[in-house]
Amino acid sequence: MSKKAVVLLSGGLDSTTALAIAKSEGFECYALSFRYGQRHAVELEAAQRVAKALGTAQHIIAGIDLRQFGGSALTSDIQVPKDRSANDMSGDIPVTYVPARNTVFLSFALAWAEVLGSSDVFIGVNALDYSGYPDCRPEYIEAYERMANLATKAGVEGRQRLRIHTPLIDLSKAQIIERGLAFGVDYGLTSSCYDPSPAGVPCGRCDSCHLRLKGFRELGLIDPVRPAA
Amino acid sequence: MSKKAVVLLSGGLDSTTALAIAKSEGFECYALSFRYGQRHAVELEAAQRVAKALGTAQHIIAGIDLRQFGGSALTSDIQVPKDRSANDMSGDIPVTYVPARNTVFLSFALAWAEVLGSSDVFIGVNALDYSGYPDCRPEYIEAYERMANLATKAGVEGRQRLRIHTPLIDLSKAQIIERGLAFGVDYGLTSSCYDPSPAGVPCGRCDSCHLRLKGFRELGLIDPVRPAA
Repeated sequence: MSKKAVVLLSGGLDSTTALAIAKSEGFECYALSFRYGQRHAVELEAAQRVAKALGTAQHIIAGIDLRQFGGSALTSDIQVPKDRSANDMSGDIPVTYVPARNTVFLSFALAWAEVLGSSDVFIGVNALDYSGYPDCRPEYIEAYERMANLATKAGVEGRQRLRIHTPLIDLSKAQIIERGLAFGVDYGLTSSCYDPSPAGVPCGRCDSCHLRLKGFRELGLIDPVRPAA
Repeated sequence: MSKKAVVLLSGGLDSTTALAIAKSEGFECYALSFRYGQRHAVELEAAQRVAKALGTAQHIIAGIDLRQFGGSALTSDIQVPKDRSANDMSGDIPVTYVPARNTVFLSFALAWAEVLGSSDVFIGVNALDYSGYPDCRPEYIEAYERMANLATKAGVEGRQRLRIHTPLIDLSKAQIIERGLAFGVDYGLTSSCYDPSPAGVPCGRCDSCHLRLKGFRELGLIDPVRPAA
């Protein structure tokens, strides 16, 4: 029987690649997405397409409402910043940062992993082309893993060490795309834009679009998902 | 202006006392409860009564669904164990353990604290009369705090150190009750039972009821909430 892994799946380029990597390592994958007060459902439709195309044992979309706390462009009515330079991105933490998002997401993954008897969680965080979020850094992930191993039955009983896999953490966007293509990932299924049209067309101008387009460009490729002209 | 604190409030005896302590320390309190697939709404009604009686700046009930992951008597259809001895309780982790519950709850508290600009979270965990849950131990709380300070904007920018306050962690149930009574807490408003009647009458036989009744008994007091005969 293959080992089970919980894979956080937003439906974007990174988490889709993380899922492909988890599968390539022989894990039976349980994909976990969130309906967390996003302004658009485009992301979740992408997650469903990806889960189906790559093949998962189960895909749960957990409803949580971070909107009630306010505080970010991705969950409230603040404008998504457009056409920032790489320099802008590397500086301050942007308004698109959702408070404690990865901490909340990993906590749900931990709960599900515990119930499944799984000791492996995959998350597609990236510390290089990462747009300045604090909860994408290796030291954060290590601290999370340490906490998680004190939080659970299995950890306490020494039966199992939970591991948080971050296969993309030190890759550039181009390297991530290259890795996924090697596993046959169809990036046309994914959605990365912070502010897509209702039909799912990416804006082409937010940080996430810029990073993605740059990644494909560096490989001399054209993103199969075409942004608005 | 007084400092803001997020206080996790289940409506039970412990979290109610933690709220009273946070208030006594001068914090403006933001109470956070969860609708997490509990089998009964009794707990949330108690939380609302308590938040109102003690006075909070805001009380949010966040809807999350841990039921979809299954795995515990408090969220699924496994029978709540009754009339276990103190010896039974100190041994194995009981089926009433909800996977990663405190990790999930603290993550939401962290998100709200970040939005409020608060660096203080109160949780009424207790390592003494605690019924064997791994995520009630001091080493878990310390690891959580460390992770949280790496997760957030404020932590990264060094503006603020998040502190998780656990004022009950080394108190016995009797000491907790004594502390709350000194602050004028009306424990008649609270609900601790894992398996109350729809009208809110505690069973008097689950671990939580036994610990609570023992606490009042040790003080020579009668619990204002009377269990089923």
